[in-house]
Amino acid sequence: MIRIAVDAMGGDNAPQAIVEGVIQAAKLKNDMEIFLVGDQSRINVSDLPQNVTIINATEVIENQEKPLMALRRKKDSSLVRALELLREQQVAAVVSAGNTGALMAGASLIAGRIPGVTKPALAPILPTLDGRGVVALDIGAAMDPKPENLLQFAQMGSLYASVLFGIDRPRVGLLNIGVEAEKGNELVKETHALLTKAQDLNFVGNVEARDVMKGLCEVLVCDGFTGNVLLKAMEGTAQAVFSGIKEAVMAGGVKAKVGALLMKPALKSFKARMDYSEHGGAPLLGLKGICIKCHGSANAVTVKNTIIKQAYGLAASNVLEKITNLTGGKDNE
Amino acid sequence: MIRIAVDAMGGDNAPQAIVEGVIQAAKLKNDMEIFLVGDQSRINVSDLPQNVTIINATEVIENQEKPLMALRRKKDSSLVRALELLREQQVAAVVSAGNTGALMAGASLIAGRIPGVTKPALAPILPTLDGRGVVALDIGAAMDPKPENLLQFAQMGSLYASVLFGIDRPRVGLLNIGVEAEKGNELVKETHALLTKAQDLNFVGNVEARDVMKGLCEVLVCDGFTGNVLLKAMEGTAQAVFSGIKEAVMAGGVKAKVGALLMKPALKSFKARMDYSEHGGAPLLGLKGICIKCHGSANAVTVKNTIIKQAYGLAASNVLEKITNLTGGKDNE
Repeated sequence: MIRIAVDAMGGDNAPQAIVEGVIQAAKLKNDMEIFLVGDQSRINVSDLPQNVTIINATEVIENQEKPLMALRRKKDSSLVRALELLREQQVAAVVSAGNTGALMAGASLIAGRIPGVTKPALAPILPTLDGRGVVALDIGAAMDPKPENLLQFAQMGSLYASVLFGIDRPRVGLLNIGVEAEKGNELVKETHALLTKAQDLNFVGNVEARDVMKGLCEVLVCDGFTGNVLLKAMEGTAQAVFSGIKEAVMAGGVKAKVGALLMKPALKSFKARMDYSEHGGAPLLGLKGICIKCHGSANAVTVKNTIIKQAYGLAASNVLEKITNLTGGKDNE
Repeated sequence: MIRIAVDAMGGDNAPQAIVEGVIQAAKLKNDMEIFLVGDQSRINVSDLPQNVTIINATEVIENQEKPLMALRRKKDSSLVRALELLREQQVAAVVSAGNTGALMAGASLIAGRIPGVTKPALAPILPTLDGRGVVALDIGAAMDPKPENLLQFAQMGSLYASVLFGIDRPRVGLLNIGVEAEKGNELVKETHALLTKAQDLNFVGNVEARDVMKGLCEVLVCDGFTGNVLLKAMEGTAQAVFSGIKEAVMAGGVKAKVGALLMKPALKSFKARMDYSEHGGAPLLGLKGICIKCHGSANAVTVKNTIIKQAYGLAASNVLEKITNLTGGKDNE
């Protein structure tokens, strides 16, 4: 039986979207049990599936709260309670769509890092034109990492991508400003040398930001600052282009409006492929348990996908064991 | 009289597009003289405007050449000859659409840095939805800069944006992964403190990558690595979205195709606004003369815009003098 704790109160559409997503996911897997952690009085469900149990938690960590302070003060929050279940090994995985900083800090403080992993990495899937996506890490957890951290990101990302995409030796790219080995800042130049030497990696070299969506690799390695800029630049540009097109149509008279109506069905599937919430959430790799960040604006389908693809998928695999083996289970940095 | 040297041989469409752009620009300004530097035998023009003079240079630095080696070996290249004209103060500005690395290295080596500026910054205009654009710097020249360098980027960028947009005290934003002052890596945290204290800047705080196109500031400050990733992520995503839409239309049957045809005129003006080549080129700020990088794929209109907006515009202003005054004209780092 695979047990998963879900933070019912985190995210813009909590608890409704979370509860619905949990119910949808629970029905798909007989060998999964979900603990829905949150304010019992706000979770209104008439018939919960048998494999879903509500765990009452009276407090909620809001998005704008400072992570460390919130974790310290709100001991009975849904997030803290869910992470405690992970620490006590009552569950194999935690899913939350709430405060990202609180999840990242709480995961390290409560669940704990794998010895030898100094910086856990947040690893969402960025959209690619072929619809498969690319695992990018780190995307906001690790500020100012060292080349050794990025090597570890590459290794952890490879193990995760193998499970997620069902492939051996996924291609690993290094986010850089040019394809030549000597390009970039000191961090990526040193990282390039480390990745080239690593026998356990299928390193395909530097990948430029403009080529990320071309699907040249399954794993894209970067520091958390640059990765976050990349993710948000892609999000913001795609959104701006779609909204710019909409505005152009609205200002373009009847002809443009009719044209847009005719094009709509064709565009819909393309927009869905661009929407990375379809891929589910982002694991925080390097922790003793499986912690998954779900997008803050997650709807029920995203929550369901996150539970099935990332939480259940990783818990049913041996990725955690393999990551632990990477470092020999020792803090040696 | 404002004199400008243009590298006729640099860029994907050289020399034709460059020559055409030069002719278009030359006709617009009576008080401007252009030196068109390149292989005379390949520049075929029957009637050159009176204010354009060809300067013969027999060699060409290609895009794939290593900058330093190319500069050393090709003394009679169009780029080296143009930069020498700048050093000898025969021209106030140089424009090239060729090898970016060679232009950046050559500009420092041949024209020279302003004393006190340790790292020159490349400052292109990124597109914004309102069509004005935002000056972003640095976007690829300065790897691993210090907070003091970023402060200087903010100051130089402000001076440039004032002239370009014709405004006082342009708003300066710092590219970061969140709006709060304590967000980001060590570099941006220290830079945030410096920018907050700077009396000569209209600092509006952190700007996230997803908001760049919203036009929240006229100057966006970042290190060259992150800036280059931002620029290319925006370029790549916009291109991917447009090509994805095209594919969806092609696969979408007659209805979608008719729809696309009807929408085309409305979309055209929006696409033009997104095309930052409309804005011209990117100055390399911090040098003793005015050096402008024109996009490698520049067409004649981009070349014309670059000559008029950046080269002529900056040469006719007192920006260079003001940048020199910033540092007191001394190397003190």
